[in-house]
Amino acid sequence: MSRRHLHLNVNILHAGFFASAWRLPESRPGAFTEIAHYVKTAQIAERGKLDAVFLADTPSLAERPDLRSFLSLEPTIVLASIAAATEHIGLIATASTTYNEPYNVARRFATLDHASGGRAGWNVVTTADAQASANFGLEAVPDHATRYARAQEFTEIVRLLWDSWDDDALVGDKAAARLIDPARLHAIDYHGRHLSVAGPLNLPRSPQGRPVLVQAGGSDDGRDLAARFAEVVFSVGQTPEESRAYADDLRRRAARYGRGPDTLVVLPGLATVIGSTEAEAKRRREELTDLIPVAYGLSRLGATLGVDLTQYDLDAPLPEIAIPANGSTTFAQAILAHARRDGLTLRQLILSLGGGTGHRIVVGTPEQIADDIEHWFRAGAADGFNLMPDVLPTGLETFVDTVVPILQQRGLFRRAYDGVTLRDHLGLDRPASHFAADAPQRLSA
Amino acid sequence: MSRRHLHLNVNILHAGFFASAWRLPESRPGAFTEIAHYVKTAQIAERGKLDAVFLADTPSLAERPDLRSFLSLEPTIVLASIAAATEHIGLIATASTTYNEPYNVARRFATLDHASGGRAGWNVVTTADAQASANFGLEAVPDHATRYARAQEFTEIVRLLWDSWDDDALVGDKAAARLIDPARLHAIDYHGRHLSVAGPLNLPRSPQGRPVLVQAGGSDDGRDLAARFAEVVFSVGQTPEESRAYADDLRRRAARYGRGPDTLVVLPGLATVIGSTEAEAKRRREELTDLIPVAYGLSRLGATLGVDLTQYDLDAPLPEIAIPANGSTTFAQAILAHARRDGLTLRQLILSLGGGTGHRIVVGTPEQIADDIEHWFRAGAADGFNLMPDVLPTGLETFVDTVVPILQQRGLFRRAYDGVTLRDHLGLDRPASHFAADAPQRLSA
Repeated sequence: MSRRHLHLNVNILHAGFFASAWRLPESRPGAFTEIAHYVKTAQIAERGKLDAVFLADTPSLAERPDLRSFLSLEPTIVLASIAAATEHIGLIATASTTYNEPYNVARRFATLDHASGGRAGWNVVTTADAQASANFGLEAVPDHATRYARAQEFTEIVRLLWDSWDDDALVGDKAAARLIDPARLHAIDYHGRHLSVAGPLNLPRSPQGRPVLVQAGGSDDGRDLAARFAEVVFSVGQTPEESRAYADDLRRRAARYGRGPDTLVVLPGLATVIGSTEAEAKRRREELTDLIPVAYGLSRLGATLGVDLTQYDLDAPLPEIAIPANGSTTFAQAILAHARRDGLTLRQLILSLGGGTGHRIVVGTPEQIADDIEHWFRAGAADGFNLMPDVLPTGLETFVDTVVPILQQRGLFRRAYDGVTLRDHLGLDRPASHFAADAPQRLSA
Repeated sequence: MSRRHLHLNVNILHAGFFASAWRLPESRPGAFTEIAHYVKTAQIAERGKLDAVFLADTPSLAERPDLRSFLSLEPTIVLASIAAATEHIGLIATASTTYNEPYNVARRFATLDHASGGRAGWNVVTTADAQASANFGLEAVPDHATRYARAQEFTEIVRLLWDSWDDDALVGDKAAARLIDPARLHAIDYHGRHLSVAGPLNLPRSPQGRPVLVQAGGSDDGRDLAARFAEVVFSVGQTPEESRAYADDLRRRAARYGRGPDTLVVLPGLATVIGSTEAEAKRRREELTDLIPVAYGLSRLGATLGVDLTQYDLDAPLPEIAIPANGSTTFAQAILAHARRDGLTLRQLILSLGGGTGHRIVVGTPEQIADDIEHWFRAGAADGFNLMPDVLPTGLETFVDTVVPILQQRGLFRRAYDGVTLRDHLGLDRPASHFAADAPQRLSA
């Protein structure tokens, strides 16, 4: 491995990874509306020297909101609040390229980068969700190819806007009444098939040059988007072999865009259930599993697979299911592979997923969790993980207090932040501007 | 007056009201990119017991950025940062109905209301700016009537989304695995000429029920939008008579929508230059005026009037100018009335505006400023003011330390916050939901 250290983000999924997390005695059902819940979780992550907090997002009401604790506060506002209450932790938020305009996204994330002293990252998603399309005046979800074609243009525009002020454009010459040097501003004049943007952006280049680009690409289009733009990839994988193959494929694709292997940090999702003994951990998992209403799990899994599952026998082996062309390929593929490999019934599958979306769950003592993480890291299956503690903030607190020290003792994880920005934490260089004289040729539309 | 107290907001205009503010020795030219600048200004405002901070916005680069210190950080991110560092002060941000989607705006402001414990307000603007349209893929600025027709639909949708969860929809019944009661959620199913949105919003009703709606309407369409929706109106007026006439007109229009006079708080803009003697204040104003490049003032005034002014003699009386139908009527009308009334040349007009946009400037001792404010308040010309200190944060600090105590001694302004939310500060009721059984008939699309 060329990376000396693991990278660990925490995915602040409402009350925790398990759909039942909000039902535990320790949880407040309305915590997802309380900014203090997010801030406290981020402060624990910072105490554990994690790289970043990560917020998922869909601009619609979750399926079966009656049964589920879900995240719905707008992520960039949440991260701005966290920025004000922390010093080091990175701040990654999801925003959809289908339901936003690139000028607004470029501006909001650049502002977050300025406000946080260089800690912002943008997770690029295309949003395969029918309710979202109805919230934005569309008759139906745009098809997969159209969503990704727009996402390619959108992401390139955002990068160009982030570069549209040279680093030294803000002159501030009081005597000459010259605040900015117009020769160091660049209109981007982008005219694509889906989007046209004149630019320049209306604020100076941000501390990181550009906020970190994050993506989670499972489909061919998605992997290509990640290979071209992503600096951090949030992946899904149940085995080291499939995760290694995925990471290798991404880096091969990235090489075609002239990118070296170290410009890409691959972080599979990892849900954790920790106990002081293995038996205690298993009991906690069972308790959480028992509290998941099967009706909820059916609805959520059906939404992920794009299939109405109520037609199937819960206790028969999972039938052959064809993934709809327009769905969320990443999770559907991972879930079906997992069900086939372990020969699960529909009910077993729902329970084994924790009501979640297909990410791997590890259950055990701090030593066992650390062993698993080390094994994947050394096998080249992961540069680290996007952690999803079972329950928040308690599951993260346990991780930080018990697993992190073991990883530190083994020399796998930092004992202190040795940089300032999210790029510093991730070992990513501050990028030169596309408009700099010696920059690589600008990618054309 | 039915209102017992003045209401005072501060408009955080980059380095201050004067276009030259950044050139003073006390100013840092890059302060507009520093979150600490905004937070410090807001904390001073809170120390002065002001109602709210207000952030203007245009999603494009300002005209002549080389000469001007301008605000460009995205306002909702800035306000989220301020929320984390303050306890009482209201938080009002501008967002354009022409260059956003209503679902995103509803969500971001509702999130800010949750994150701040009920202190958010949205200033609704339609954005008459050619550069902005080019940043969002449009060939030209949509015409005035189209912008306002979209704004009417947009604002109604946002209000309905804010009401789409009943106040008690979040049940949180752990035993019954019932987080939310779906019967207390409301799809809005809005289908207008410009916008269609299904809803419901994906988060609970916010502490204020709905964030406060703010508007600044000068044209007939703008006044109608304000009369229908606005709870705070940011107006422009150089004399008590014209301001009183404007406020009376707005309240007459509001009455047609069934609204009482106290549901509308009218706050003219007021720029302040304060000195410990009148001579000192005048010297400070002269210093600031002398530092405004005439080229900048010409460019900015030309943009406001929608006319290329370089064709005119700087030292001749201002010629007759027709306001283009598609421009920003409010400021153009105010500026031309001011120039005619005082018989100003073009150069005198530019300097008399402080390089600003047409708001009234008062220059004097703290007593004189307080007298002016009291006179306008008692004359029914204003319910308070949207303050624009000459230089930030120093001009606000002086206002808070010298003018506020006089207003308090006279019983015109609060000595302490006696409520929690921005609605409390403004004396506005928490609105019942449109979907409540006993709510007034929902306005139809």
